[in-house]
Amino acid sequence: MLAVSVEHDKLQALCGRLQPRFGPRFSLNQTVRNQHCQTTTWLKGQAPDAVVFPESTEEVSSILQQCHALRVPVIPFGNGSSLEGQVNAPFGGICVDLSRMDQVQRLWPDDLHVAVQPGVMRHSLNQYLRNTGLFFPIDPGADASLGGMAATRASGTNAVRYGTMRENVLGVEVVLADGKIIRTGTRARKSSAGYDLTKLFVGSEGTLGIITELTLQLYGLPQSIVSGVCSFRGINEACQTVMLARQLGVDLARIELLDETSVRACNRYSHLTMTEAPTLFLEFHGTPEHTAHTIADFVSIAADFGAGDMRWAESEQERAALWKARHDAWWAIHALFPGTKGVTTDACVPISRLADCIDESWQDIQASGLSAAVIGHVGDGNFHVLLLIDMDSPAETERAHQFIGRMSERAIAMGGTCTGEHGIGQGKMACMPLEHGDSLACMRAVKSALDPTGIMNPGKLFDA
Amino acid sequence: MLAVSVEHDKLQALCGRLQPRFGPRFSLNQTVRNQHCQTTTWLKGQAPDAVVFPESTEEVSSILQQCHALRVPVIPFGNGSSLEGQVNAPFGGICVDLSRMDQVQRLWPDDLHVAVQPGVMRHSLNQYLRNTGLFFPIDPGADASLGGMAATRASGTNAVRYGTMRENVLGVEVVLADGKIIRTGTRARKSSAGYDLTKLFVGSEGTLGIITELTLQLYGLPQSIVSGVCSFRGINEACQTVMLARQLGVDLARIELLDETSVRACNRYSHLTMTEAPTLFLEFHGTPEHTAHTIADFVSIAADFGAGDMRWAESEQERAALWKARHDAWWAIHALFPGTKGVTTDACVPISRLADCIDESWQDIQASGLSAAVIGHVGDGNFHVLLLIDMDSPAETERAHQFIGRMSERAIAMGGTCTGEHGIGQGKMACMPLEHGDSLACMRAVKSALDPTGIMNPGKLFDA
Repeated sequence: MLAVSVEHDKLQALCGRLQPRFGPRFSLNQTVRNQHCQTTTWLKGQAPDAVVFPESTEEVSSILQQCHALRVPVIPFGNGSSLEGQVNAPFGGICVDLSRMDQVQRLWPDDLHVAVQPGVMRHSLNQYLRNTGLFFPIDPGADASLGGMAATRASGTNAVRYGTMRENVLGVEVVLADGKIIRTGTRARKSSAGYDLTKLFVGSEGTLGIITELTLQLYGLPQSIVSGVCSFRGINEACQTVMLARQLGVDLARIELLDETSVRACNRYSHLTMTEAPTLFLEFHGTPEHTAHTIADFVSIAADFGAGDMRWAESEQERAALWKARHDAWWAIHALFPGTKGVTTDACVPISRLADCIDESWQDIQASGLSAAVIGHVGDGNFHVLLLIDMDSPAETERAHQFIGRMSERAIAMGGTCTGEHGIGQGKMACMPLEHGDSLACMRAVKSALDPTGIMNPGKLFDA
Repeated sequence: MLAVSVEHDKLQALCGRLQPRFGPRFSLNQTVRNQHCQTTTWLKGQAPDAVVFPESTEEVSSILQQCHALRVPVIPFGNGSSLEGQVNAPFGGICVDLSRMDQVQRLWPDDLHVAVQPGVMRHSLNQYLRNTGLFFPIDPGADASLGGMAATRASGTNAVRYGTMRENVLGVEVVLADGKIIRTGTRARKSSAGYDLTKLFVGSEGTLGIITELTLQLYGLPQSIVSGVCSFRGINEACQTVMLARQLGVDLARIELLDETSVRACNRYSHLTMTEAPTLFLEFHGTPEHTAHTIADFVSIAADFGAGDMRWAESEQERAALWKARHDAWWAIHALFPGTKGVTTDACVPISRLADCIDESWQDIQASGLSAAVIGHVGDGNFHVLLLIDMDSPAETERAHQFIGRMSERAIAMGGTCTGEHGIGQGKMACMPLEHGDSLACMRAVKSALDPTGIMNPGKLFDA
């Protein structure tokens, strides 16, 4: 779909209202607009008509009031690191870039709570917390904005122990489509006072309103952190180890799978000497006694599945090197396949189906004649396939598209979901009817109730 | 408010449609109707016009289609153990008693998941699981139905380690107001595929639809369970201990506070010999090494706050006796104040405000000249006040009402909620505007979107 601009008259009217107020913080510049559409995937970028940079909730509210009055689409923008076209502007409209709303508002150290504006980046938050003994664990890899992470229900490597944004956002301030400002949730650990609106806005991908503040759950830094790697003869043995460890309740903080290709890529890119075989990257958090016991439990399970080489890293430097390699895997794999474009997709299944789902997906990759690497947050039953595509070949591109569709269908058929953490955006709208059936009508009803004019991030989540 | 019957003509029409289908499972009997309104609180019982006992999702759907067509109110009923008037019928209508939908539908032992019908009681589920090594931890005290527990977002003594119904319902089948059947959620541990409808239905108190199936998260029975009691000079010292233990991340499974009155009542009622002072009831789950370490951590914190008598129970029999005494506390306290009616209320605050909130509430109780006991799930910042009221004294009843209102306001002002686990029902509707502000309009919009004719449990959550 090509991006469609908002009618000239409407846009003129909107400029007339926003330009005087925002001055240089309102831009029609083509370069600025191009920087604010999807850039991280194969989805075609669809630039907004203008970009505005508010600095307060009240400014966001006034922008939305104007857009609502003129029926102009609004696309919220955090850091642009989403993967499924969430920040594209298929119907044109105004991109609301929240990067200037980047203040930590308040810390409650005794409750392990913090309130932040949506433009605060997760690295910045952990930097802010560095002398408090606290940290925010959700780590989707990219240094995303916390508002964007909430909007896409992000998770990542630490979710197996700490949950996702769903579990760690206690409340939000939201500007609704008509500019009204509301606050959801409380700082109590639990509540049974009415509908859980916080959980409704988390994961709504900007289609219900713009998150302008978030209250987050923090955690005490563990006394002991031990990381390690552990290689296996096959992906299946690695998955069986993960499944049994999860079923037995072994207290893992991170458990990530890299297939042989990914390990080879990491070795070359990050100058490591790991055994080039399917490998689990692990991390354990707790007291020294607890991590020691947990590691012993894990080792005994892994041994039953013929685990080979295991290496442990306790110093912060060794651990950092290991996880840097894991986070650089994406670039490392790209470097292994020069001339291709990497396209990533994810799915999440019940843990008992993980080995089957990865195995069938891998056979499908080979039958489709595609180049790919498998990598993922397997402790949650969540994995990614990184396809390396020759974008000049329409046939190969089409085969990749078909594969992604089948991978989603496979995960749904196994009782899982077409996306564990990347979201729907534009890329997976076609999966929504299959995954949700008649409850999709329920989602549309909620959307219409909260955004009756349909200006909030149109063309995402739901087919128009 | 008196219960208002549905107009005679409408009721006749509905009987004409439901009686032929349900036969003896459709009742207009006054005794049956009286058994299906609020019986556990001081809220006046408001009987429905009829009670129907469906045995399948399709039957629930057909009931709702008829009620929707005739605009007759529908009140879902699990076991009637809710505390805030959730099952009253202020506008008359049909009570849908789900107790015959009491089958465990499917167990996935490798995923620690189970699907149940809404009428399955939590004790029955754990009985069903007894040879599997698994259990469902949520324990609100009463042997409630799992559908009712989901609808009211119940929690209880184990929530500090295992979360509430919010965290442990993976998906639901729901019959909407118009009879449409939808399914929400998946069995994957996480998903970012659209709005989280599961979390919307959990806690909606039957105002959005009727839950006809739930998929629940189970847990492996811990290798080691150790329970204990620990007394303190004052409530404040007990609360300080809880706060510090929570802040330091001590892995508690249960941590319950009983004030001096409650302990005295338990001693008399359950023939125990506990020190009659504010007391924490504790439980630790894990491997034997883990519970031993955790207990040591806890003891060292408690000692700093002058903890006195500590007693530990490892055998299943000792533990059962201890928790039976805790669960019988309600009756024990009643027995201590003959001639009064017990009215319970709850609130939940951020953990740092727990001591203040209990302390101020206690002063308020004394200033109001009321008899009461304080008891609660303090690990979550959640506590209950059990007021012992002479219902023949309008003045005392009014003072109790006023106290409950102030307790809600106090909790909200401290960043908490007017109810951690009892829900809103009819009893706390007046607190909703204060707690939610403008987001209450958002809840109403969602309600209207999913139940446009307003037949689902009217007169609950929202003032009419």
